[in-house]
Amino acid sequence: MTYQRARGDEAGSSLLLTDLYELNMFQAYLEAGMEGEAVFEFFVRKLPPERNFAMAAGLEQAVAFLEAARFSEEEIAWLEAGGRFSASCLEALAALRFTGSVEALPEGTLVFPDEPVLRLVAPLPQAQLFESRLINILHFQTMIASKAARLVLAAEGRTLVDFGLRRAHGAEAGLLAARAAFLAGFDGSATVLAEARFGVPAFGTMAHSFIQAHASEEEAFLGFARARPRQVTLLIDTYDTEEGARKVVRLAPRLAAEGAPVQAVRLDSGDLAAHARAVREILDQGGLGAVRIFASSSLDEREVARLLGAGAPIDGFGVGTSLTTSGDRPSLDCAYKLMEYDGIARRKRSEGKATWPGRKQVWRRFEKGCMAGDTVTLEGDPCEGEALLVPVMREGRRLTAPPTLAESRAHASRQLAALPGPLRALEAAPAYPVAIAPALRRLAEAVDRRLAAG
Amino acid sequence: MTYQRARGDEAGSSLLLTDLYELNMFQAYLEAGMEGEAVFEFFVRKLPPERNFAMAAGLEQAVAFLEAARFSEEEIAWLEAGGRFSASCLEALAALRFTGSVEALPEGTLVFPDEPVLRLVAPLPQAQLFESRLINILHFQTMIASKAARLVLAAEGRTLVDFGLRRAHGAEAGLLAARAAFLAGFDGSATVLAEARFGVPAFGTMAHSFIQAHASEEEAFLGFARARPRQVTLLIDTYDTEEGARKVVRLAPRLAAEGAPVQAVRLDSGDLAAHARAVREILDQGGLGAVRIFASSSLDEREVARLLGAGAPIDGFGVGTSLTTSGDRPSLDCAYKLMEYDGIARRKRSEGKATWPGRKQVWRRFEKGCMAGDTVTLEGDPCEGEALLVPVMREGRRLTAPPTLAESRAHASRQLAALPGPLRALEAAPAYPVAIAPALRRLAEAVDRRLAAG
Repeated sequence: MTYQRARGDEAGSSLLLTDLYELNMFQAYLEAGMEGEAVFEFFVRKLPPERNFAMAAGLEQAVAFLEAARFSEEEIAWLEAGGRFSASCLEALAALRFTGSVEALPEGTLVFPDEPVLRLVAPLPQAQLFESRLINILHFQTMIASKAARLVLAAEGRTLVDFGLRRAHGAEAGLLAARAAFLAGFDGSATVLAEARFGVPAFGTMAHSFIQAHASEEEAFLGFARARPRQVTLLIDTYDTEEGARKVVRLAPRLAAEGAPVQAVRLDSGDLAAHARAVREILDQGGLGAVRIFASSSLDEREVARLLGAGAPIDGFGVGTSLTTSGDRPSLDCAYKLMEYDGIARRKRSEGKATWPGRKQVWRRFEKGCMAGDTVTLEGDPCEGEALLVPVMREGRRLTAPPTLAESRAHASRQLAALPGPLRALEAAPAYPVAIAPALRRLAEAVDRRLAAG
Repeated sequence: MTYQRARGDEAGSSLLLTDLYELNMFQAYLEAGMEGEAVFEFFVRKLPPERNFAMAAGLEQAVAFLEAARFSEEEIAWLEAGGRFSASCLEALAALRFTGSVEALPEGTLVFPDEPVLRLVAPLPQAQLFESRLINILHFQTMIASKAARLVLAAEGRTLVDFGLRRAHGAEAGLLAARAAFLAGFDGSATVLAEARFGVPAFGTMAHSFIQAHASEEEAFLGFARARPRQVTLLIDTYDTEEGARKVVRLAPRLAAEGAPVQAVRLDSGDLAAHARAVREILDQGGLGAVRIFASSSLDEREVARLLGAGAPIDGFGVGTSLTTSGDRPSLDCAYKLMEYDGIARRKRSEGKATWPGRKQVWRRFEKGCMAGDTVTLEGDPCEGEALLVPVMREGRRLTAPPTLAESRAHASRQLAALPGPLRALEAAPAYPVAIAPALRRLAEAVDRRLAAG
């Protein structure tokens, strides 16, 4: 069960959460009468060398943002008091609603550089104004889903739980990281609000402080199991991990008799592989072969792969900071760029940041259920394979009911299943083939000739 | 002028934005009758090698969170429907208010490992429950202020502006990164909402899309300057940086005559030092010696130091992703740990994560206006120097009106001015001396003896 918020003022729902230059340009466009149709695309410019793919995410939040986008009266009053903007600009801002259309990759779709994740078509002033927050929304969840997908590949079917709220960058990051990780294949999150808002299963045991607050570790274990008899996972490393495991063995029969059988133990410090092996042996010898071992403590995909490669008997992993901050790569090189204005294709040519112009579509070919290559071309130039961008919004409204998060998660899982073997590695693989179609190259050349002539 | 939000449902204002284990423990504490007074401290456990200090930030948001903390009726109903918690637990959650006290470092204070940033004293169940979000709040702004302070040191007085909203991790991160950077000495932020909420001066020019949307660069420059005649900064790298500078020289007399004098140009790609030198020469020869050069594009403190070290004639820097994600170090190793419960000092002894027990105070000595060493000791054990932790809340309420952000920024500036020379470097310096007082060591030993005997 999820519930809808009755109240609705996230920082992110304020249109003042934008860069000042967006408002400057809004006014300049109005004054120049430049209210023609603009086409912007959001895309990943480049992937870090060891990231072999990205996973599109955040579309639902982007759509919700566009549907709800408006300035409040108090925000307009604040802008007016600042004296930066003309009366006609303020009037236009007060009346602003998103009236355009959106095409996008369904959430969970794997995506590569130069492929549009989302295209927005709207009158230029508004299409520009939404830039900052749209990037802010799409960048974050795409980055986290991409990171989480690597963990899913590394964990080879073990349970994966997001533990990262505390070091996520603020409230929204904590909440949406849980969503993006679940989308990519995590089993759940410790973050309760992610269950309330998005149905992401909540997982949780106890903290070290719980053990410390009790006179003894045994007393803490008993108190916890009795209070939560259906989900008894005990944290055993507060003082001495192996000693903790022996206490669990001693207490287990009593707890089972009380109807609170121990289901799992959690390790959170030290050499996790060595502790897991020692604890497994203690548990097995104590007749607790069914008790699972859950591990956390500064884990990332490489450490998960290393632990499993070393045969560590770990059944599940709690992954925190490295997941919710995308610790090794806390940003993706992505952009939202003008591709066409007033019927004319546009292109940015800044050094190292040139873009492909026009309205684009991505076609993906499959061979024996495996992704075999993409082609980026102009919309309306059909290619072999499956067209990935689908219509999402028209005239400012969503076209159809959005997929549930569970449906998007199933889509993500199918996408990962179709990922070619070499790209599943955690290290850099030869790049997935993304071809630029002749039609798109010809348009880019035509834009260059026009700019050279101008 | 700032305005207060009329509406108020940030994700961060929901007490469901917590880890499930906090709620599990809440119930277990209640059932065990463990509602005695608990003392938790938030502190930085370890700094990355090249980070010679941290700067405390986020206290105001932490206090606001504690003052407003309560479950809504719909949240309690949702918890009840989930069936995880007992009726008496739900009743206690519904009635929950923060009733405790807080001591903390004033925002902008420099802080080192093992020194408490904040101490919270309250009945155990609530002190525990607030853990996840308190860390989430304090960690993020402390990390960003610490990063921003390095940029302030590197920029040697040049203008610094936060450009990082788009790649900040969500809405709250974008907003609060602007606040934390300003606190640490930045001149402002591109994020408009940071001016509205916190009075952080907003800066902004134009995007490449603005240039691209116009038939020519000249037309775009003219349109922008006429729409915003008081703040004419022109982005000149969309097609060719030096050619852009020449266009500015050609247009400048006309714009000056129209009352829209060019104030600055912005470079956003390529070799910024080379472009800045070439552009400076073009501007100077064109009689625009007073026009400032502003640079952005993947800058961080090392690149700013390198550019200035190379004598690049750059007057101001826009710093984006590396600032708002703390790109090289997107998390700080920090914790919120139980230090005392029910009058008895507590200590976590997990491998590599042991803590100093008890209620602590930090004393800082100064020599000739320069920080000369800190001592961490037990509260009530007076040392030489200045006591850094100050009372902030009593019985759940703030004690005095909070400092303005400008006052905290001035405090941060004085702190940075007192930082010893070697610690001002961007590279690792010998650690600042932080002594653990004998009284604190004796208490830790006593706790260890008690645990060993238990």
